[in-house]
Formats: sequence, C-alpha cells, structure tokens
Amino acid sequence: MTMPDVPAISRFPVPALADLPEDLRARILEVQDKAGFVPNVFLVLAHRPDEFRAFFAYHDALMLKEGGGLSKAEREMIVVATSGAANCQYCVVAHGAILRIYEKNPLIADQVAINHRKADLTPRRRAMLDFALKVSLRSAEVDESDYARLREHGFTDEDAWDIAAIAAFFAMSNRLANMSGMRPNDEFYVMGRVPKR
Amino acid sequence: MTMPDVPAISRFPVPALADLPEDLRARILEVQDKAGFVPNVFLVLAHRPDEFRAFFAYHDALMLKEGGGLSKAEREMIVVATSGAANCQYCVVAHGAILRIYEKNPLIADQVAINHRKADLTPRRRAMLDFALKVSLRSAEVDESDYARLREHGFTDEDAWDIAAIAAFFAMSNRLANMSGMRPNDEFYVMGRVPKR
Amino acid sequence: MTMPDVPAISRFPVPALADLPEDLRARILEVQDKAGFVPNVFLVLAHRPDEFRAFFAYHDALMLKEGGGLSKAEREMIVVATSGAANCQYCVVAHGAILRIYEKNPLIADQVAINHRKADLTPRRRAMLDFALKVSLRSAEVDESDYARLREHGFTDEDAWDIAAIAAFFAMSNRLANMSGMRPNDEFYVMGRVPKR
Amino acid sequence: MTMPDVPAISRFPVPALADLPEDLRARILEVQDKAGFVPNVFLVLAHRPDEFRAFFAYHDALMLKEGGGLSKAEREMIVVATSGAANCQYCVVAHGAILRIYEKNPLIADQVAINHRKADLTPRRRAMLDFALKVSLRSAEVDESDYARLREHGFTDEDAWDIAAIAAFFAMSNRLANMSGMRPNDEFYVMGRVPKR
Amino acid sequence: MTMPDVPAISRFPVPALADLPEDLRARILEVQDKAGFVPNVFLVLAHRPDEFRAFFAYHDALMLKEGGGLSKAEREMIVVATSGAANCQYCVVAHGAILRIYEKNPLIADQVAINHRKADLTPRRRAMLDFALKVSLRSAEVDESDYARLREHGFTDEDAWDIAAIAAFFAMSNRLANMSGMRPNDEFYVMGRVPKR
Amino acid sequence: MTMPDVPAISRFPVPALADLPEDLRARILEVQDKAGFVPNVFLVLAHRPDEFRAFFAYHDALMLKEGGGLSKAEREMIVVATSGAANCQYCVVAHGAILRIYEKNPLIADQVAINHRKADLTPRRRAMLDFALKVSLRSAEVDESDYARLREHGFTDEDAWDIAAIAAFFAMSNRLANMSGMRPNDEFYVMGRVPKR
Repeated sequence: MTMPDVPAISRFPVPALADLPEDLRARILEVQDKAGFVPNVFLVLAHRPDEFRAFFAYHDALMLKEGGGLSKAEREMIVVATSGAANCQYCVVAHGAILRIYEKNPLIADQVAINHRKADLTPRRRAMLDFALKVSLRSAEVDESDYARLREHGFTDEDAWDIAAIAAFFAMSNRLANMSGMRPNDEFYVMGRVPKR
Repeated sequence: MTMPDVPAISRFPVPALADLPEDLRARILEVQDKAGFVPNVFLVLAHRPDEFRAFFAYHDALMLKEGGGLSKAEREMIVVATSGAANCQYCVVAHGAILRIYEKNPLIADQVAINHRKADLTPRRRAMLDFALKVSLRSAEVDESDYARLREHGFTDEDAWDIAAIAAFFAMSNRLANMSGMRPNDEFYVMGRVPKR
Repeated sequence: MTMPDVPAISRFPVPALADLPEDLRARILEVQDKAGFVPNVFLVLAHRPDEFRAFFAYHDALMLKEGGGLSKAEREMIVVATSGAANCQYCVVAHGAILRIYEKNPLIADQVAINHRKADLTPRRRAMLDFALKVSLRSAEVDESDYARLREHGFTDEDAWDIAAIAAFFAMSNRLANMSGMRPNDEFYVMGRVPKR
Repeated sequence: MTMPDVPAISRFPVPALADLPEDLRARILEVQDKAGFVPNVFLVLAHRPDEFRAFFAYHDALMLKEGGGLSKAEREMIVVATSGAANCQYCVVAHGAILRIYEKNPLIADQVAINHRKADLTPRRRAMLDFALKVSLRSAEVDESDYARLREHGFTDEDAWDIAAIAAFFAMSNRLANMSGMRPNDEFYVMGRVPKR
Repeated sequence: MTMPDVPAISRFPVPALADLPEDLRARILEVQDKAGFVPNVFLVLAHRPDEFRAFFAYHDALMLKEGGGLSKAEREMIVVATSGAANCQYCVVAHGAILRIYEKNPLIADQVAINHRKADLTPRRRAMLDFALKVSLRSAEVDESDYARLREHGFTDEDAWDIAAIAAFFAMSNRLANMSGMRPNDEFYVMGRVPKR
Repeated sequence: MTMPDVPAISRFPVPALADLPEDLRARILEVQDKAGFVPNVFLVLAHRPDEFRAFFAYHDALMLKEGGGLSKAEREMIVVATSGAANCQYCVVAHGAILRIYEKNPLIADQVAINHRKADLTPRRRAMLDFALKVSLRSAEVDESDYARLREHGFTDEDAWDIAAIAAFFAMSNRLANMSGMRPNDEFYVMGRVPKR
C-alpha cells in the first residue's frame, strides 16, 4: 500500500464535531445515522459554516427535490459524468457510489465517469448527458438547438433547467473539492458494487 | 440599433413580483431600493425560489462577509476575470460595473475581463487572479505550489480559500447565466464609467 | 486607483512627434484633428515607419473602402469579436468605441467582445461573426460549406473575402498589440456609451 | 438496469473459439485458465489473427518482462493513468482491476484514472505518471528536461524507455478499444475491491 | 549549415549490427538490400529486440497485407496525415517519401502532412483521412455515424478497421519516435520528389 | 495521380496579367524574372490591388529590410515554423523552399515545419522560434519573461520586435491563404532539395 497511514481529507483545517454550530452538527449526525459514516464533504466544508449551509441548501434543492422529469439516479448520472470530465476525485467516487445504489447497477458509474458515449445508456440519457457536459465544459455555446434536442427526447424546459443547474452546481463542487484536496471516504469505492448479503 | 424592442432577460419564464414568496420579494425590493433598479439575476433565478435562496445565501457568504484578506473590490475582480474567461455576458457586465464603483477606476473592469495579464494590477493582485483563473479553468491541476505562490504575495490559506471559493461559485453562476440567456440590465454598462455629477 | 501615474503605452520606445517622417506626422495630426486625441496605435507603430505605412495602408484598404456589402459598423464588429477571442486589450477597447459610435448602440461592443452568440444580432450578423471567428481561430478548417452558409445570409463571395481579410488583418494587429503591450487611450473606454449633450 | 440483456463486446464480428487458429485458441484458453474468464480484448482482437499475435507479443514484451526498474504494479499504473486521460472504458476498467490486485490497494486504480495528481502516490510515482501522460498527450514536447526529472527520482534511461513505451503502446490500445467499442468484462469492475473470503 | 556533423539518430544507445540477434540482423540487411540504406527506425528500435520484433510484425500485418479495400498508397496517406497532426519528424519524413513513391506524386505527402483538407484528394480519400484523424486525436468520440459516413464512400467495416488500426499503430509509433528523438535518414527527404533519371 | 489536371490556385477570381494596374504588373514581372515563375500569392492577392500593395509593402519591410539581428534565413524560419503550426499549405511550401535556399540546407524546412523542437537548431534559434510560436499561438500570454529569455540568447528588443512582427504578419498571411485556398506552385516543392547541376 502506498497510502500514508491517515491521509488528510482536506488541506484546510477540519473542525471537530464538538466545535461546530448546532445546525451543522445536527445535519452531520443525521447523515451519519443514515449512511453509517460521515461523507467527507460535510467535514471539509464545515470549515466555513455559512458556506456549508448555502452549499447543502443548494444541493438539496437540486438533488432531493420531489417531482420533475429526472429520476434521482439520473441526477447522480449528471454529477458523475461532469465530475469525470473535471477530474474530480471526490465527486466521481462519492456520487458514483450513490449512482450505483440508486440505479442498482454496479457498472454504470465507472462507465459514465470514463466516457458516457460508450456507457449502457438509453438515447434519452445520452442526450441528457450530452447537454450536461456542454453546460459544464462549453456553456458559452449553449443555444436553442440544445433545448430542441432535449425536447426530441421528451425533456421539458424545466427538465433542461434541472440538468443545467445540476451541471452548474457541480462545476462549483468540483472546483471546491479540487482546491481543498477533498478526499473521498474509503467506504464509497466499493458501495453498490456487490450484492448485499 | 439591432436590438429587438424589449429583449427577454431569460429564456425561461420570469415571475411577476406579486407572485413571488414574501422573502424573495423583500430581497428584491431591498436591492431595488439600494441600486435604483432590480438586477436581472434576481428576477431570472426567482423562477426557482429554493435555488434563489441558496444562491444568494452563498453569494452573500462569499462576497459580503466582513473581514478576510480580500477587499470587496478584489472579490469583484475575481468574478470579472473568471467570467471573462467563461464568456459570460451577465457576470462580466454586472460585476464589471460593481468593480468600477468599488475600485473608483473606470478602466479596470474592461482590462481584467479582456486580459488580466495586461491590466493595471499590483503583483499581489496579478497572483490572486492567476490563482482564480487556474481554479476556474484547470482546477484538477491545483497543487501546493499554487498556495506557496499566494503566500509569497501575503495571502493566507484562508484568503486562498476565499479566492478559490469565489472562482468556484462564479463557475456555477456563469453556467447558469449562459444556459438561461440571462441578460445584463442596460444600466450596468455605463455605471462607474463617468464621474457623478 | 491601482494604475501607475503615467502608464507606458508600449514596451518599446515611442518616438516624439517632432522626430517622425513628415508623412507619419501628417497622418497623426490628421487623426488627432478628427478624433480630438491620438490613438496610441499610431504612436506605438511609429517606432517603425515602414511598418506604420504598410499597416495603415492595409487598414484603410479594408476598413475605409467605399462599397462592398459590409457596413462600417459591421467591419468594426468583426474586429471586436475576433479581438475579444484573442484577448487583445487595445483592439477590443479602441474598436469597441468605434463600433458603439458607428452603430449608435452603447451595448453592442461589450456584447460582441464577450460572447457574440448572446449579442443582440440579426442572424445575418451572427453568421458573419461565426465566419470571422472561424477564420481567426481555425482557418485551416475553412471550406466551401462556410461560403455556402454566408450565401444563405445574402453575403457574396466578395463580402466573404472582406470578412476574412478583416479577421486576418486583426489577427496580425492583436499579436502586435499583445507583444508590444499597446495600451488603449483612456478616452476610448467611455466613447459612445452616453448620449452627447 | 439500463443495459441490454447481452451487450456486444465489439462492433465487429467476434469469432467463435472453435474457428480460431490454434495458437490464438491456446493463448485464450491459457488466460481463461488463469483468470477464470476470457478478457474481452482477446476475443475482440481475434477478429484479426495477425494483429492479435503482434499485439500480445508487444504487450508481453512491455508488461511481463522480467527485470527493469518498474514493478508490474507501476506498469499498470501507467496504463490506467494514460487510459483515463484517453477516456478508454476497456483499458481503465480491465487494467484498473489488475492494478488493484498487484498493488493490493482497492483505491489506487480509481484515484489514478480520475486524477493522478491527487492520488496516494510517492513523488517517484507521481513523476513517472507525469512523464507517461506527457508522452501520451504531448509527445512532441518531450525533451531532455523530462529525462532529467526522471533521473532525480531514480529512474534510469532504460526505465524512461519503459515508461514511454508503455504509454505509447496503450495510446494504440486506447484507440483500438474506442474504435471497436470494446466492452470490459463485468468481472473486472469489482476485482481487487474487496478482500478475498 | 546548422547541423552537427554526425547527428544522433536516437537519444538511446544504438546497437552495432554485429551485436544484434540473427533475426533482427537479417531483417535489417533485407531492408538495406531493398532500399539501399537502413531506415533509422530499424536501428533505433533494435535497442529492444523483443519490442522490435513485435513492432515490425504489427507494422507488416497492417501495412503489407494483401487484399483489403485500401491501396498501399492510401495506408501511407493515413500514416502521413496522422503523424503530421502529432508533429512526428520521423514518421512524416520517412512515410512521406514512401507515399510519394507509391502514389507517383511528388506533392501529395507535403499536402497531406500540412493540411489534408486542402490536399489534392478525392472525396473518398478525404473521408478516409477525416476518420483516421478522429481515431488519432479524439477516439473517445468515435461512434456509428463515423462508420456510416465511411460506408457512403464505399468503405466496408473491414476497411474501417484497417484505417483505424493504422491510425492507432502510428499513434504508438509517433510517441516512440518523439520520445527517442528518432531522426529520419537524410535520404528520405528527397525520395520521390524528382523523376528518376 | 489524384490531382485534377489544372487545379485552381484560388477559390476567388484570378485576374489576367493584362488586366492589372501597372504597378502590380511590374512587380509580378519583376518577381517572374528573378524566380523564373510567378509565385501564386502574387496572382491570388492581385484580385484586390490595394490589399496587394499593402501586403507586399508590409512583407518587404519585414522580410527584405537590411540590418537587424536576424538573417534572412532566420526570418524564413519564423515563417515556416508558425505556418506549420497554422496548417497553411502555401506558406509552409513556398517559404520552406526559400528557407532551404537561404540556409543551403535541404532538411531544415521540413524539420522546422513539423516540430521545431526536434530540428537541427542552435539554442539561439530554438529560443527565437519558441518566442515566434508563442506570439503566433498565445500572444495574450507574452510578457517580460519572454523578452528576458531572448536577451539571454543575444537578441535585442529590436530583434524581438522583428521576430514578433514576422510571426504576426504571417498569422495574417496564413489566414488569407487558408480562406482563399491559395495553392503553392509545384515548383516550390523541390526547390533547394537537390544540389544544382
């Protein structure tokens, strides 16, 4: 093994749980309770409580909202595809795990992260990721022809906003993770890869 | 003039002020009171109230916070430089206006948006924008040498987080503005260019 | 203000008016008479009189010629769009001013410099700038399909030459300005932005 | 699950084992015996027996040779890093599995495929991958300074040839896999991720 | 003349003919007999006999095979076009010479190396080189539309494999030549340019 | 041979010599007298007499001027290197011929056009071409460190202007040649490759 014994999860200070404002601590304990561990993004961003609050409020508004034309798995697919293109360790590994679980597919996350064009995707999902990657990588070139192509695959304008907003939010997340050296929890790497026993 | 008579400020529906949740309306009236007009970003994002709330909470945490090693003008400089590189009309024009006003310099916004390397900048600010642009355009390549260079110019690690977080937040904003066709208010173009009478 | 008191207009020596050959001095006095000031490009290039003469002869053949299918404003639009893509301070700021004045539109120069796809442009002008930018950035890929698209918008082959030749000439100018650190006159920044009183 | 029931492993015909020349069949049975399944690259390239023979002769000369300054795990690291940069599903997934096993590290393959700069690597291995990626992506710029940097990390010129030759061979492999739609076996995705029971 | 008197043909050791394994020596003497000189690629790669054997076995399987829809000249065209795009001195100069001879056309190699879009090519050959360059430069984006376009020009799927495999093999060769500083023999530069007397 | 019998030298009309203004005709006859044929650039640009005059005045000011620190061969080297990077058939082939003749070196033009880093160049000339290519490809990034590096190799600031101005002028020429489909005369391909008899 080439890893140092206890690798840092951030190049910035990581506050102790006890030192956090109550609302942050509550959120963190809630996610720990649900997931069985605390995803490092919560601890790394807790360094800046106001930014933490806004980050997760935005995240939840996009990723957890009820309704809309995108399934939760599809939203995670957008995260994984755009984060792969941005070479973001944390987002590919952590959201890849969530995608495998939501989609009950042990292969899809790696496929989408490496090259969505060769992934096992319906044409509708291929179009969704093509648009997400255009927003992520060349948003200045987005025009009405992009929305028209989405409509051909049954996406409404509201769905298009969702796709673009998720791609945009994770453009931010990728940069935060890359600048802070945010390390994915070891747990994520294997989640959703093997059937539960 | 090649402009249509009343150009749209978004390719998505823009809600009437009367139809907005109370907190959004209050925020919008407050900014109108202060600026004399409503910057279009408030109206365009009001299409999604939860996203509006998170967006401006995040914005304020980064751009309005007291303390820290970056002046408000320097924060706007980061916005203008990275938004220029992302070809974002709204962010360059609107934040360019704010930068001119904060900096009391009618030239600086255009200089920074076009090519920060040729702008009238101190070496410290040049280093700040070099880092911001690396986070914006090539964040996967950020490493400790970037932080070391910032320290040579007197920036602390906390300042570095601020620079990177602003660059990251506007990477998101640029994509939102580009996908929605967010139009800068005409008022911004001339603000801060001529002495007040 | 972050500017040094008297910023240099070139990293090369700038000759005194009195030391110039008679024809250069006459040209400079003529432009000063007309514009009210001497645009710095005349002074910077006067460092090399033979190059000055050829540069302005070429410039005038393209930008001042009578006839042809391009208005003078459209020619300036080509300059501003391609110079924005080349990150050239002098050309964006100086020709942006001229464009605002010719077009009597205080917004158009910033729009075209930042992202012509989102500017207030007719489809004809959009096609004109798409071609100009292809010549400027990827001329090796120009082929007959580009000329066909121009014809659909009413441009003749002679117009196409004009568009391409202006894009090519300013590809040269952008490089000369960038290498010499050619500084736009402060006057340009505000010209054409506010109605004359 | 979004996958078709039996996804193709190549967009070209895949010969039946019985129809193959004896030497190809023997090689394939040998690998099946050792790995427990036949990696698809053997079946896909068997479409062209002469190319199959040369491909695996070359592969073995680089990846299986005894001696030299690179461990087998390090050779696989080069494959994974350069194949990640080339967005090659087959090579990242299949060689990622081998890397995890050789290195007895369940995290290293994903880390190296996504962004080797943020992987758990010694400075020596970081330098090795920097060079491999330069050969893979910008070989025209390789010069003596690259060899000097490798020497600082203890690599001889012969090691440098090995690194470069592996990067070059997989530049070929990536293109073959991408053009043929070579599909990684499902088995690879989970290999080396969980301790054997 | 700016050349050193005896420029090296490789930055790695080049073995003496007498020290080579018998099969390598035989191959080299055979090519010398046929061409009148030993192309440097044989000497440079002889530094690694096993790699030499695999390299030329692969080369011969692709470039010398009988049958198939590509003429030998067309195969060389693929080499020259893709090697031009990879800035590989050895491959452009050596295979350019072979292309001129096969095609009995003194202009075609330079045309194809510099910009195949402006070369004297039939539409069929233009399509062949477009595909080869896509495999060489952006293989992750290859999809069925590329094969469909080739079919419109009369290429079968087997021809498509040939085109792609040659592009892939020379992607490897270009990197080997660039990393080793492989120098083209002076003889190649003028071969096929002037009528034999 | 795949060439049409009489390939066009331009996609635009080429005027008959008899129809040209006297000064253009005189210049063309002069060059024909000296070279033995009329380089196509003269005929292609004669379509626009005013642009022809300015183009050659500029060309002569840069390429034919007496004095300065650059030999005529070095000036041609700048043309060939930057035109290779811009994939310009006419400029690489025509100026490659002139470079071979001036330098009395049959290899140098192909070397410099394909990859100047691997060409037979002194460190001084390597630095000259590095700067020329930066001006040609990334002029917005030129700064004082580039001039400092040139000085280390004995270039004055006036030499730097010459290098940059030649790179800039041929950035224009490359675009004019690419847009017009300017065809190099067949004569250029072999000039300077074989000793005169």
